[in-house]
Amino acid sequence: MLTRIDHIGIACHDLDATVEFYRATYGFEVFHTEVNEEQGVREAMLKINETSDGGASYLQLLEPTREDSAVGKWLAKNGEGVHHIAFGTADVDTDSEEIRGKGVRVLYDEPRRGSMGSRITFLHPKDCHGVLTELVTSAPVEPSEH
Amino acid sequence: MLTRIDHIGIACHDLDATVEFYRATYGFEVFHTEVNEEQGVREAMLKINETSDGGASYLQLLEPTREDSAVGKWLAKNGEGVHHIAFGTADVDTDSEEIRGKGVRVLYDEPRRGSMGSRITFLHPKDCHGVLTELVTSAPVEPSEH
Repeated sequence: MLTRIDHIGIACHDLDATVEFYRATYGFEVFHTEVNEEQGVREAMLKINETSDGGASYLQLLEPTREDSAVGKWLAKNGEGVHHIAFGTADVDTDSEEIRGKGVRVLYDEPRRGSMGSRITFLHPKDCHGVLTELVTSAPVEPSEH
Repeated sequence: MLTRIDHIGIACHDLDATVEFYRATYGFEVFHTEVNEEQGVREAMLKINETSDGGASYLQLLEPTREDSAVGKWLAKNGEGVHHIAFGTADVDTDSEEIRGKGVRVLYDEPRRGSMGSRITFLHPKDCHGVLTELVTSAPVEPSEH
């Protein structure tokens, strides 16, 4: 079951400049950064609020690391803007198979690694009224070391 | 101060069909519908989660009521997809003036009426790395009648 807006993915040409825009304009701070070579992106997660399912909602700023990545091609065609939206679920495997069974194209055979150790998959935008839609299960919170 | 992702605004050709897609695919239910003649849209709000600032995050599905509305023109150019993102604040007047003072173009002189009695304004997408950005202050919750 999808229980939150997990993030809004925003494609940009220059990650550092875009991070600085969000900091200077709204006061949003970087929560996490990483490079995902498989996705071909360098990204920054800005945490905006916590959510009633125990998770959080983020902006995910994405700069392509290579022009032939999915985000690189999208950016060349569309320019900067909202690239995808993501819903959080406790069980991306079950939910994505259930959604596949309803005739919506799921882009991966199995969920792959997303930001911060999450597991993710994407739904085809043509099956979702034009919206590239990601499903995310966050990594389990590490038990504190006592 | 912006304290939540208030909603993601999604433009569509057929509101009823899009509402049905979100219900059948994800189980999201309609929380509220209205027509905003000033904005030239018929809309449905789907509540996804509550947020740590006491508000909530929604999907806002938007069908233009006339082709020459902002959403109608956008849809004719871009097709269905994410039209804007909105951040929630307790004080849209102060925040929008502060942001205007930083050189970001604010599209209205004064906030106008948005969904569910909220007050809203928009920031120019060219000043926001390609993202049409709305600021929202929700209507005060009506006291219960006892």
